[in-house]
Amino acid sequence: MHILRINTRTQEARTEPVPPTWERLGGRGLIARILLDEIPATAEPLGPKNILIWAPGLLVGHMLSSCDRISIGGKSPLTGGVKESNAGGSTGLAVARLGIKALLLEDAPADDRWWVIVLDGNGVHFDPADDLVGLGVYASAERLRERYGQRAAISLIGPAGEMRLRAAGIQNLDRDGMPTRISARGGLGAVMGSKHIKAVVFDPPKGAKPPLADPKAFREAQKVYNQALMAHPQTTVYHDYGTAAMAAMTSHFGSLPTRGFSEGYFEGWERISGEHLRERLLKRPKPATPTHACMSGCVIQCSNVYTNDDGEIITSPLEYETIGLMGSNLGIDDLDVIAQLNHIANDLGLDTIDTGAALGVAGRAGLLPWGDGARALALMDEIRRGTPLGRVLGSGAAIAGKVLGVEQVPVVKGQAMPAYEPRVIKGTGVTYATSPQGADHTAGLTIRAKVDHLNPEGQAALSRKVQISMAGYDTLGACIFAGFGFAAAPKDTIARLLRARYGWDDVGEDILTALGEETIRLEREFNRRAGFTPADDRLPEWMTREPVPPTGAVFDVPEEDLDTIFES
Amino acid sequence: MHILRINTRTQEARTEPVPPTWERLGGRGLIARILLDEIPATAEPLGPKNILIWAPGLLVGHMLSSCDRISIGGKSPLTGGVKESNAGGSTGLAVARLGIKALLLEDAPADDRWWVIVLDGNGVHFDPADDLVGLGVYASAERLRERYGQRAAISLIGPAGEMRLRAAGIQNLDRDGMPTRISARGGLGAVMGSKHIKAVVFDPPKGAKPPLADPKAFREAQKVYNQALMAHPQTTVYHDYGTAAMAAMTSHFGSLPTRGFSEGYFEGWERISGEHLRERLLKRPKPATPTHACMSGCVIQCSNVYTNDDGEIITSPLEYETIGLMGSNLGIDDLDVIAQLNHIANDLGLDTIDTGAALGVAGRAGLLPWGDGARALALMDEIRRGTPLGRVLGSGAAIAGKVLGVEQVPVVKGQAMPAYEPRVIKGTGVTYATSPQGADHTAGLTIRAKVDHLNPEGQAALSRKVQISMAGYDTLGACIFAGFGFAAAPKDTIARLLRARYGWDDVGEDILTALGEETIRLEREFNRRAGFTPADDRLPEWMTREPVPPTGAVFDVPEEDLDTIFES
Repeated sequence: MHILRINTRTQEARTEPVPPTWERLGGRGLIARILLDEIPATAEPLGPKNILIWAPGLLVGHMLSSCDRISIGGKSPLTGGVKESNAGGSTGLAVARLGIKALLLEDAPADDRWWVIVLDGNGVHFDPADDLVGLGVYASAERLRERYGQRAAISLIGPAGEMRLRAAGIQNLDRDGMPTRISARGGLGAVMGSKHIKAVVFDPPKGAKPPLADPKAFREAQKVYNQALMAHPQTTVYHDYGTAAMAAMTSHFGSLPTRGFSEGYFEGWERISGEHLRERLLKRPKPATPTHACMSGCVIQCSNVYTNDDGEIITSPLEYETIGLMGSNLGIDDLDVIAQLNHIANDLGLDTIDTGAALGVAGRAGLLPWGDGARALALMDEIRRGTPLGRVLGSGAAIAGKVLGVEQVPVVKGQAMPAYEPRVIKGTGVTYATSPQGADHTAGLTIRAKVDHLNPEGQAALSRKVQISMAGYDTLGACIFAGFGFAAAPKDTIARLLRARYGWDDVGEDILTALGEETIRLEREFNRRAGFTPADDRLPEWMTREPVPPTGAVFDVPEEDLDTIFES
Repeated sequence: MHILRINTRTQEARTEPVPPTWERLGGRGLIARILLDEIPATAEPLGPKNILIWAPGLLVGHMLSSCDRISIGGKSPLTGGVKESNAGGSTGLAVARLGIKALLLEDAPADDRWWVIVLDGNGVHFDPADDLVGLGVYASAERLRERYGQRAAISLIGPAGEMRLRAAGIQNLDRDGMPTRISARGGLGAVMGSKHIKAVVFDPPKGAKPPLADPKAFREAQKVYNQALMAHPQTTVYHDYGTAAMAAMTSHFGSLPTRGFSEGYFEGWERISGEHLRERLLKRPKPATPTHACMSGCVIQCSNVYTNDDGEIITSPLEYETIGLMGSNLGIDDLDVIAQLNHIANDLGLDTIDTGAALGVAGRAGLLPWGDGARALALMDEIRRGTPLGRVLGSGAAIAGKVLGVEQVPVVKGQAMPAYEPRVIKGTGVTYATSPQGADHTAGLTIRAKVDHLNPEGQAALSRKVQISMAGYDTLGACIFAGFGFAAAPKDTIARLLRARYGWDDVGEDILTALGEETIRLEREFNRRAGFTPADDRLPEWMTREPVPPTGAVFDVPEEDLDTIFES
């Protein structure tokens, strides 16, 4: 494995050995390390000193189920702090097969030309991309696949990233070649746009694979993990219903964000639930399916393909977060409309969470009547056209709130909250408040814990535990659901896999915790240098005083708990 | 003197004695103290926990030349930190004559009605203001003066404050009753709008005056100060040319912000200079004049009245900062156009600095061709109409840059820079970077110092000295130009005035420094609690690497100097 640096201004590429301090990190943890080592913390996120990084997790490269995720990172234009956003699809596997431990896109060009970077067995080259500028993600991906072959993995941006909108993400192809696995959060698409890179094509030579120190031991550990994962009941739930299964649970708790986070219960929740989604997709013509794998080797297959009655794909996948933020959060209970909103967001290359939250802000500002799907679609079209209102909404919920004069904005560190009302699921509220990433459910969701979610006591300890695990999984390249398998498998499974892969004989059972703690430590240090303080580790103040119906809860976890969460 | 608290939700008013720790402060220093004591540092600036404060400086109330300024303050919606913005006109005098040391507008109403608060000899009452909503500042002031008499002082907001735009200020009447003395900076107009207060009318009983402990000693010290002020050469310069005199000096140094802060020299500078302004106003029919007093008793009279050829007032005053930000910064060299832009900003109740800087951002984004006055006027009309683009521009330069995808934005702590290019006048750059107020020339302008402004050495010490003096003057209620008089007068003049006014016999010669140091200490502590760190005490990173023509200077004062500036 090596480090690949590409200067986007001079178009020079340089291969370097992996520095010792980067060796034992991957994915999210490695990105935090690189940010600390290479990016001045006060650099402008869309300026030439920011670096856009691809880093596969430590376990990526051998089709371990749900463990081939790619982490993309840099300094976030949305939060101003550290940012790692990971995705499934084929990118992680391809980067690892190219022998790349981390790809660093540095500097920024001075002119207006756009480029595709191609990494293959022959090295690195830049191809002009001017013909792709302005094209949506779907059309761009189609042309790129025609040009570079159906086997290549591709990371690309849509018009949102080109426009440097702060809710822009970076799309990756799934195993079917559809550009739907988005590193969505924190505006990394805008960073890629600031460097005038429309796409990076990863085309490893056929058969290339990262070496295994002990192939036999690896296969054995893999088998143990797979069995544990397959046996876990949640694997079946996500297989059948996808993430949308969550809607029933959040509705039950009164924690489904509704009408601009003003309520926690949506009267139309059943029509946007996982059960209803499954039923609908089973009735629709192929390729509609409620069960679909985003990456090769995954046994969970939580993804889905959403078609209309004619079998035309509207979107894939339709996820719970999108259903929450672009459904109940806008008072919309029609899955077909939500799927269309999702499709436009995907095609523009936008985070559906921050965009949905921004539409919720528009709702509070009187620009979007609750439940008005046609108007929501028209607002998405404003973004596509780059109108001033479109740019406001594409800048995410925090900026939209400032411009539109709405104070009740559901953001932390400038990043919008996913679809778990934090006044009700208070442990997740602690995660939103204290994660170095900003509000993020994948940083530490607590809703499955058997606790009284409304009781502020003990939520910080719970959040801490989950945050550290998740930071560990993100460093391994493991999907949030892989955790079910690892948690059920023998305690040394991750250590066995890492020993077999790298020959690190000193790795112990506590490796997940060790990686997670180190990752969060590095991230907090970068944020500290970038100017973050305890005052940033807070939910918005209005959530501490405005009760959310029907529970009437406010966020009342003591500030001291937030301030000391990572001290113990 | 007493403290007056008015709850804008319940409409209850309460008079309280002055707490001992507030006693020896006024104006800016008292506002910092009140913020620390009463506003949770992480409160939302436009939420009910923010408090909008009027506090006259310690010397206000006796028509001491240039020393009757009103400080208005609260937590800034633009910077998120401490904010004090002072203005001339008649408000300071009237507040002091009502015996009010500080007026605190607390809480926020839950409904949509708007109010005028009236303070007079009979106490406090609320009058409906719904008929004034949407009216510009000029029409509003006219109606208010008809209703409440020509003698009353008034603080009021325009449509910008009503729309809660973050570049909105609070206007005050000048001694002629024109609503042109704006507490412009930091978005305090939006705070007033968030509390649904269109205006506060201050109507002290005739003849009311704050008591003097020793009237004779006060008159003696006043005489000494007045003589020193009158004898100072700068008094004559500002009397004849107003603040616009500065254009020649900044042009000479290459520090006149030009075309979105991309250059420091404007080829049309002579047409927007103080000399040209004076010449034009002397030719125009009355009431045009290059010499005009904003408050009673002022001997400097740096203000002006700008008319068209028919003698109709276009604006008053036309100040250097506006000429810089709405003139050279937009490539506009026609004073008539600049005066019209100024008029619209005044009528909307907008800070011309942050709005001008936002228009400069629009220029960099390609929405405003440099020098196109008609387009600039059309953009101001977008703000008036509250269109999405208008709301973006009215939100100030920092937010405009984020929405419009412009990284080279001239802001610190979210607040736009006045018309001194900080890469060239580096001491002022240090002030911009380190003032707790955000970028602000009145916090410590160094351009008159006899130093090499391009040499980074010693600039922090220079800035520190001036910042402390200015914080002291802002606490006294003294205009930035009163400093000429105090600096030239015997060293104990301020102490003599304070002793004679309050009977504080222990006040010594170092009182200006003591007040300034205490004020900055309090402000920094509030900012610290609000989440500010050394990373916020920086110029934007692009100014450290993009040279500004014609000097080719970058901002290169060492970060260590910025970090330690207030430590010694």
